[in-house]
Amino acid sequence: MKERVNSKDVAKKAGVSQATVSRVINKYPHIRDTTKEKVLNAINELGFTVDQVARSLNTRKTSTIGLLVGDISNSFFAETSKEIISIARSLGYDVMLSNTDHQSDNLKTSLATLIGKRVDGIIVGSVERFDEQIQTLHDSKFPVILYNTRLASGNCNAVVIDNFKGARIATEHLISLHHKKIAYVTLPLNYSTLYERMEGYKQALADSDIPYDPASVYIGEISTQAIENFIDIIMSSPEKCTAVFAASDQIAIKIMEICKSKKIKVPEDISIIGFDNIDLSRSPFIDLTTISQQHIKMSEIAVHNLVNMIENKDMEEENQNASSVLEPQLIIRGSTKVLDK
Amino acid sequence: MKERVNSKDVAKKAGVSQATVSRVINKYPHIRDTTKEKVLNAINELGFTVDQVARSLNTRKTSTIGLLVGDISNSFFAETSKEIISIARSLGYDVMLSNTDHQSDNLKTSLATLIGKRVDGIIVGSVERFDEQIQTLHDSKFPVILYNTRLASGNCNAVVIDNFKGARIATEHLISLHHKKIAYVTLPLNYSTLYERMEGYKQALADSDIPYDPASVYIGEISTQAIENFIDIIMSSPEKCTAVFAASDQIAIKIMEICKSKKIKVPEDISIIGFDNIDLSRSPFIDLTTISQQHIKMSEIAVHNLVNMIENKDMEEENQNASSVLEPQLIIRGSTKVLDK
Repeated sequence: MKERVNSKDVAKKAGVSQATVSRVINKYPHIRDTTKEKVLNAINELGFTVDQVARSLNTRKTSTIGLLVGDISNSFFAETSKEIISIARSLGYDVMLSNTDHQSDNLKTSLATLIGKRVDGIIVGSVERFDEQIQTLHDSKFPVILYNTRLASGNCNAVVIDNFKGARIATEHLISLHHKKIAYVTLPLNYSTLYERMEGYKQALADSDIPYDPASVYIGEISTQAIENFIDIIMSSPEKCTAVFAASDQIAIKIMEICKSKKIKVPEDISIIGFDNIDLSRSPFIDLTTISQQHIKMSEIAVHNLVNMIENKDMEEENQNASSVLEPQLIIRGSTKVLDK
Repeated sequence: MKERVNSKDVAKKAGVSQATVSRVINKYPHIRDTTKEKVLNAINELGFTVDQVARSLNTRKTSTIGLLVGDISNSFFAETSKEIISIARSLGYDVMLSNTDHQSDNLKTSLATLIGKRVDGIIVGSVERFDEQIQTLHDSKFPVILYNTRLASGNCNAVVIDNFKGARIATEHLISLHHKKIAYVTLPLNYSTLYERMEGYKQALADSDIPYDPASVYIGEISTQAIENFIDIIMSSPEKCTAVFAASDQIAIKIMEICKSKKIKVPEDISIIGFDNIDLSRSPFIDLTTISQQHIKMSEIAVHNLVNMIENKDMEEENQNASSVLEPQLIIRGSTKVLDK
């Protein structure tokens, strides 16, 4: 392996001062192009880069952002991570990604690792609503921002859509199509996102004087077996369900697959609506009615707000106002239809 | 933000020596559970973690692996990244992920960044076959391993499946179903993976004395417009194609979507086979015949081999033998059928 390259060597090679090297590296404005070229060529010839670890010890800034997601193989997180990495790069930050597998223990070690690596701030896509670790981090004034989720306390900056409203709109869409027996399928409610969607579902029913029926609601892990059993129950009860609202597109697609295997036609026999608007839902093979999270916009805002917090660390107020709530949007596709009388 | 925590403070708090703290942190065997607990509690109480950057400067090891992929929103990379992060964690390594958007310039800056962050080694999932940067890195004895792809020179360690053989098997499957006019759709051939699949397609045709027809082959970027035009051409020529081999499942699914919009039935009007066996291909809505890459196994081997290279850096031979070639496997599903006479 090559010897460690430092800014002194670069300065010598480029025939400029160390301060000039530092200014080029840190992308200061007003540097002549010829000077910039000299420095970058010197860096290139000496090896791959100036030693950013050494630099971090001088400036106490690593220009790295940590990103914690629950499951990178879930389309929602894959699509938002791609966007976050791209926006961060355009702002001069690298991203260190950690996958927690939705485990609180992994969140703990991932946070420890990222902080150990001296990231300048952290973006968190999955955290339980009563989690205390993120709360502690926020309280210690470490730049942290949540996206897609928030803490029950509301104390940490978060970029989310109005999940309560989104779920209400989804349920109201089914009601407007004359459905009255509307099932709901969700993962456990320890994430704010899922908790608020459940509340929105209940509210929409209440607004239309439709009684809430626990037998039409599935709250638990999403396995093929469990969902098959649930579908059997709601389709065979005397007053059978004619529509299902799924807490995410991923769950909705799982339900559609199970319906297909049971020869239950969507939307003829049952209407299905999801939540998230992942790329796949748009496919003509899926064609899922859903609620758009505006997840690309959400990713953008999260990065911009975090970088703002990092770069204006002393502005207390700035940090208090980095939250955003985006508007949900109903996307009507082929998986929902008017109930035949 | 909390003051920087170091192993001296932890040792004091836990009432043990600094060497013991180091042993606990570095997961040495034979440490009493009570001692371990004391140290971990002390770390916990003092802050989030011992300063891993400081540690890295002592041991010259950061226990971090860099991962470079072309597009994290592509299912193949999302699924393999998840596996790589998980395996790396189980071996005590964190992963810093970079998304190159398949741009050579981004590869360059990403490599520079990762090396600047002093990662112990790098796993690369996308690199052009004549790329010189990876070659240079390998020549400098920096631990680097490719997966899914390899260099034309064959000089860098790589974990791949036999792409040539996989493409030959795919094409032979169609030939065995009596198809003779078999189209091929691929991205440009600057990646070894795609280059070798093209060669496999040609070989299978040659083996069965079917002439290679450039008019039945699409090599280029995959846009809806371009694929629509191509499908129109191959379906309207006097000797129209009855089957399509797509260089990846992602491309195959795109073709299936376009066929659906044109009311071309799969597999009745046209058989389609892909390559990769991503999760989605298994969905009953897609049900795509394909070639399994064994991409989970590929990810596992890549991490294990890289860690082996990192931890046995002086063993020259070890580094020369970290390549693996996995066997492709035909997965027959509903998108291919026997040609009606």
